[in-house]
Amino acid sequence: MAESGGAQIIDGKLIAKQIHWSIAQEITTLKERHDKVPGLAVLIVGERKDSQTYVRMKRKACAEVGIKSFDVDLPATATEEEILDAVLALNANPEIQGILVQLPLPKHVNEQKILLAISIEKDVDGFHPLNIGNLTMKGREPLFSPCTPKGCIELLKESGIAIAGKRAVVVGRSNIVGMPVALMLNNRDATVTIVHSRTKNPEAIIREADIVIAAAGQPLMIKGDWIKPGAAVIDVGTNSVDDPSKKSGYRLVGDVDFEEVKKVAGFITPVPGGVGPMTIAMLLQNTLESAKRMFALEG
Amino acid sequence: MAESGGAQIIDGKLIAKQIHWSIAQEITTLKERHDKVPGLAVLIVGERKDSQTYVRMKRKACAEVGIKSFDVDLPATATEEEILDAVLALNANPEIQGILVQLPLPKHVNEQKILLAISIEKDVDGFHPLNIGNLTMKGREPLFSPCTPKGCIELLKESGIAIAGKRAVVVGRSNIVGMPVALMLNNRDATVTIVHSRTKNPEAIIREADIVIAAAGQPLMIKGDWIKPGAAVIDVGTNSVDDPSKKSGYRLVGDVDFEEVKKVAGFITPVPGGVGPMTIAMLLQNTLESAKRMFALEG
Repeated sequence: MAESGGAQIIDGKLIAKQIHWSIAQEITTLKERHDKVPGLAVLIVGERKDSQTYVRMKRKACAEVGIKSFDVDLPATATEEEILDAVLALNANPEIQGILVQLPLPKHVNEQKILLAISIEKDVDGFHPLNIGNLTMKGREPLFSPCTPKGCIELLKESGIAIAGKRAVVVGRSNIVGMPVALMLNNRDATVTIVHSRTKNPEAIIREADIVIAAAGQPLMIKGDWIKPGAAVIDVGTNSVDDPSKKSGYRLVGDVDFEEVKKVAGFITPVPGGVGPMTIAMLLQNTLESAKRMFALEG
Repeated sequence: MAESGGAQIIDGKLIAKQIHWSIAQEITTLKERHDKVPGLAVLIVGERKDSQTYVRMKRKACAEVGIKSFDVDLPATATEEEILDAVLALNANPEIQGILVQLPLPKHVNEQKILLAISIEKDVDGFHPLNIGNLTMKGREPLFSPCTPKGCIELLKESGIAIAGKRAVVVGRSNIVGMPVALMLNNRDATVTIVHSRTKNPEAIIREADIVIAAAGQPLMIKGDWIKPGAAVIDVGTNSVDDPSKKSGYRLVGDVDFEEVKKVAGFITPVPGGVGPMTIAMLLQNTLESAKRMFALEG
């Protein structure tokens, strides 16, 4: 549906809103059937401003769709053992079907140890190595797929963009986005290349892609002439750059030079309003799925 | 070191032999220090001829380097529970530091369930989803890397072929070879593309690679004009094709058309005598590493 000189803008905000709505409907049904609602625990340690903002948004979204949010706020001075104890208490709490530990944790804490302690049945962020292992292996299904990568796939699906047989290039190889989204595209029969900071001539590789997922954390890195005409470009980057014309003094930009790339691409997500809202929608969806699975087991 | 018209042949048999020798040396030292030797359990269910051959080779290699081999041979009629009980007994046996369950298992057995039951500390095949998860995730180290992929990496290393910054194409995406070798190349800073049966124009993608790992199980699929001059080609394929000129009536060929490709490539592994011997060498190495880790813990 690309017009000459203009990519179709993928409205992540709208798609996320529709997902929220359908989750809210399902939760109403669940409540009628089981007389209980899904519960999501959001655990935050310390007072990083960005983490607090994310956590606030997640808790607010829970409230809106009818998920009961359990707030655990620990001080930055909390010991590893105190955090571990908090996680174990959440594991044991039958009202909770999803546990999210907001990252990063303070430096004195072994992040891997905390994440491994989360019950795999409640790992709605999908970062438990057992979930990642099952995502990697053919013929296995993870209980949960990580939220941001799942959101990228959902945006492609909702926009009618086929994945099977396509060339996909993922820019960035983080545990949270790049690597899992590459695995998910491969699982859906795309031919996937992962480009990273050690890649020579990334533009030549990106130019071959039918689907580009930009998750490098490099503001405006991907230019118009890096993109094959008609390609679908999903921009996961959220970088703040100085902008004296704004009251705040900064604005958010993606990893993609939106103004240039939208003239070449067939589809493109804006920043903000593209992938961002989908991450929370997928978190709610994972929590709902988890609750449905657990409620069914309880009969 | 490629000469015009001739790739350097990577001698997997010789490299494997050197590894066997150094493992044997280390085991002698271990024996002196701890008065015990590594133990590897090789469990086979049923009487598939190919599986029996592999198991016999593995047990023989153990004997040669001084690893004590524990043979568990169950009939094809063994129930899932019987196999599970056998695995649990091996988990509990302090003389055993490595457990290998020869695949495939009979159809009536849930393979995933059996593999998950192997103690992760003894999973020398590296196929436990927790090991694969840690292989996938940045900043994590699996206890064991799968043997055949590890053998491919070792062949590149021993041949002085740099991986970082290179374009690598893996042909095939199996749990046993394609996917883990792609992850290992990415972890070593190659830019990796996975090509598979749904890829369009695989030859165009393969032609861009500095390193090709062929693991598709398609006899002689990769032709001379698919290869960039000077590329390193590692052939994991082991396919038997009819050959009336042989007494047996067949011969083994790889996924690579060796005669054509050796004229173009810089490095190439033969079949047999390339990757094959390395798989067993890496199994012995994983078993030795496991034993060293466990003996150290025991003090």
